[in-house]
Amino acid sequence: MSRSRTNLGPGELLVELDRGSTVPLHQQLESGIRERIRQGLLRAGTALPATRALAADLGLSRGVVVEAYQQLVAEGYLVSRAGGYTQVASAAVRPSVQPRLRNVAAGLPPRIDFRYSRPDVTQFPRTAWLRSVRKVLNESPHEALAYLEGQGALELREALADYLNRVRGTAAQAGNMLICNGFAQGSRLLLQVLAAAGYRRLAVEDPSDDELRVVATTAGLETIGVPVLEGGLDVEALDRSGADVVLVTAAHQFPTGAVTSARTRAALIDWATRRDALIVEDDYDAEYRYDREPVGAMQGLAPERVAYAGTASKTLAPGLRLGWLILPERLVDPMAEAKFADDRGSSVFDQLTFADFVARGEFDRHLRRMRLRYRLLRDTLVRCLAEKVPDLRPVGVSAGLHVLTWLPPDLSEQDVTQAARDRGLGVYGLQPYWVHNTGAEGLVFGYGSLTEHAVAKGIDLLADAVAAVRK
Amino acid sequence: MSRSRTNLGPGELLVELDRGSTVPLHQQLESGIRERIRQGLLRAGTALPATRALAADLGLSRGVVVEAYQQLVAEGYLVSRAGGYTQVASAAVRPSVQPRLRNVAAGLPPRIDFRYSRPDVTQFPRTAWLRSVRKVLNESPHEALAYLEGQGALELREALADYLNRVRGTAAQAGNMLICNGFAQGSRLLLQVLAAAGYRRLAVEDPSDDELRVVATTAGLETIGVPVLEGGLDVEALDRSGADVVLVTAAHQFPTGAVTSARTRAALIDWATRRDALIVEDDYDAEYRYDREPVGAMQGLAPERVAYAGTASKTLAPGLRLGWLILPERLVDPMAEAKFADDRGSSVFDQLTFADFVARGEFDRHLRRMRLRYRLLRDTLVRCLAEKVPDLRPVGVSAGLHVLTWLPPDLSEQDVTQAARDRGLGVYGLQPYWVHNTGAEGLVFGYGSLTEHAVAKGIDLLADAVAAVRK
Repeated sequence: MSRSRTNLGPGELLVELDRGSTVPLHQQLESGIRERIRQGLLRAGTALPATRALAADLGLSRGVVVEAYQQLVAEGYLVSRAGGYTQVASAAVRPSVQPRLRNVAAGLPPRIDFRYSRPDVTQFPRTAWLRSVRKVLNESPHEALAYLEGQGALELREALADYLNRVRGTAAQAGNMLICNGFAQGSRLLLQVLAAAGYRRLAVEDPSDDELRVVATTAGLETIGVPVLEGGLDVEALDRSGADVVLVTAAHQFPTGAVTSARTRAALIDWATRRDALIVEDDYDAEYRYDREPVGAMQGLAPERVAYAGTASKTLAPGLRLGWLILPERLVDPMAEAKFADDRGSSVFDQLTFADFVARGEFDRHLRRMRLRYRLLRDTLVRCLAEKVPDLRPVGVSAGLHVLTWLPPDLSEQDVTQAARDRGLGVYGLQPYWVHNTGAEGLVFGYGSLTEHAVAKGIDLLADAVAAVRK
Repeated sequence: MSRSRTNLGPGELLVELDRGSTVPLHQQLESGIRERIRQGLLRAGTALPATRALAADLGLSRGVVVEAYQQLVAEGYLVSRAGGYTQVASAAVRPSVQPRLRNVAAGLPPRIDFRYSRPDVTQFPRTAWLRSVRKVLNESPHEALAYLEGQGALELREALADYLNRVRGTAAQAGNMLICNGFAQGSRLLLQVLAAAGYRRLAVEDPSDDELRVVATTAGLETIGVPVLEGGLDVEALDRSGADVVLVTAAHQFPTGAVTSARTRAALIDWATRRDALIVEDDYDAEYRYDREPVGAMQGLAPERVAYAGTASKTLAPGLRLGWLILPERLVDPMAEAKFADDRGSSVFDQLTFADFVARGEFDRHLRRMRLRYRLLRDTLVRCLAEKVPDLRPVGVSAGLHVLTWLPPDLSEQDVTQAARDRGLGVYGLQPYWVHNTGAEGLVFGYGSLTEHAVAKGIDLLADAVAAVRK
């Protein structure tokens, strides 16, 4: 900082005052000076006009100027010097903040996009949700708004336990449930708590969603991929792997669409019992089964061996950030403590609103409506695939928000996705989901947020892309 | 498991069916059998009645029984055996979950409680909030409900930047703000990101809130206490400590109530610049200043040296779980990534509702109302202390939701809080807030959630307790 001192005459401090404003004049003067210092227009060391002179110049009472200077001195923008003058403080010199330049995404987004993980948020039941919000705001006791407990709002745990026991065949009660901000937070906390309790090795389905593996590594767990067979996880391979916790998508495997068979369920529970291990059941989209009643959750079979995770992200909206766990007794307190330490609980309004929404049957109603819609989309997708690209055969059961097709040997994920991208179509390979790449190539189609028309048009484009690759 | 086989006659499977219910009969039958297995009433290996016999017994078509058995086989409760009979699966044997016994808190809660950290949630502006929720549900675009970005909803970052720049003198813009679930999550993520970036030593004010220290340790940071003087932190001691990050409550120190002087502000920023260190400014209750305009935030003086943290927990309700950070440019992307990895963003409805609430001036209106209310409570508390226990002299400025009084040498925290507790009064010592206990004893009075009457009555009880200790 330069030690030379600039003296500013009253006329040089250009501050515009709006006498018609409701903002007091001293505050207007403060903001004006503060802004000039921030923008570097008033440099460190610059002496400000004497209060009397500035007051005369601006047509203010001197008290107003004194008040403004004092405030800015208290805040550290100005310094009062011996001799009675006021100077811009040296600490106030700072690089001005530049507007942030965001990375511009490479290329335009595809016009039709089969990316997974997008439910149809245009169908969010806004009116019914508002009804529940209104009820909560009108009727919930004041205490509900104070600091929360780690397990979550009792009302929601009760409503969800009833719902899940009825619809998913779980053995839930308010006492063994925990509310979290979606599967992302719930699974992270669970892996952290397990790692702290001495668990070491997490087995995941191969292929499976890749996001959890990073979380596991951060939590200090080793991750192992175990192959998925037609009836679910290869339990013999699991047994050999030395894992002490396994994550399964038993009701509808992601991304293969397989359903864990009764035999595999029994083998998994037997494994967990023999090994004193834990099964984490990610029940992410089990409400969407189109060909029959969904298979009940494994948690109901062995509540002390299974930690069950559910989410509203696929059924209502990801933006809600609502998820839930049903936990073995021994994990309830450690998880409630972990959740409390993490963020002091999830938003109380969302929790109470969702509780009312579930308890009034609105959730069931919404799911019935969405099942019809998604089933139609899936049927359209499967039909169009059969018509237009018959050698891309869908595998897995009629369920969920996605379909997997394996690729015939002459087509590679990279060629097809690139040719599709050139045509404004987003299709996605299996690549990111493998732990050990088996060389099998395939495409995962998410259809949740599309229309029938877009699905049909998308498969037309895909057929065109495939033909181009084969040419 | 016993290998002996129990055969169950059709009449022995007592399942009650409600033919008037909307629940399909096969589902009723499934639930009935599932529950009996769960409760241990049907042991592993037990053979179920033949479908034809059970159907006849219950007056059902055989298809209904077959469907129920198949479902339970798929779920793993039953096993189909060669020879055509169906058996309870061995995996289905499990210990029944006992209702959880919660620790019963020792003793009754005090009738009047000066515990800190409780704003008056009875004053939550429910009507105005509902108006904002309605607007959000009626008008927000569908895309808002899909997966979020790590920094939080743009609408809220914009509304808060405007508000904070106006009321707190910050240099915020949507681009350097991040929305989090209260200070708890925001500070945890910040310390984690700092630790990952190579920061090693966190200085905290001594005394100060103790919760962050655990978080710092978990994040891998060493914590050091630096004494608080009348004008704020002892910056010379800070400089000697070798800290590379410091947490300050500059506008209103917790718990001493001191305001960081202009000199200390300048010295802190100078320290941060020299050391290439970071100041974390916890602006937890700065909106509540009663004797004058609040001193602006330090962040406005040096945005690249200060990470600013604010929360709605003290101003609206802790149950909202809304907090915000204004970050130096270099921390924005790492923090957005950390927040996204943590829980994929905060609840979108709360964010958009709060954005509307702030933008419409409802937040200012609410704060004006609450300032009057809290000021009255503080004045009552200070007046009653002066009248009834004049040697417990309040220190700190007229601000916030708490008051500290030091204790005269003949009174100890332990004796006074115990004597108060015997009279149904909750008062709390400084003990937990010290990093290095200086031997100074005092009491911290939180008054946010009390009435004038309760404050006056509480100080009567305190005077009585003090007299008893001195007797």
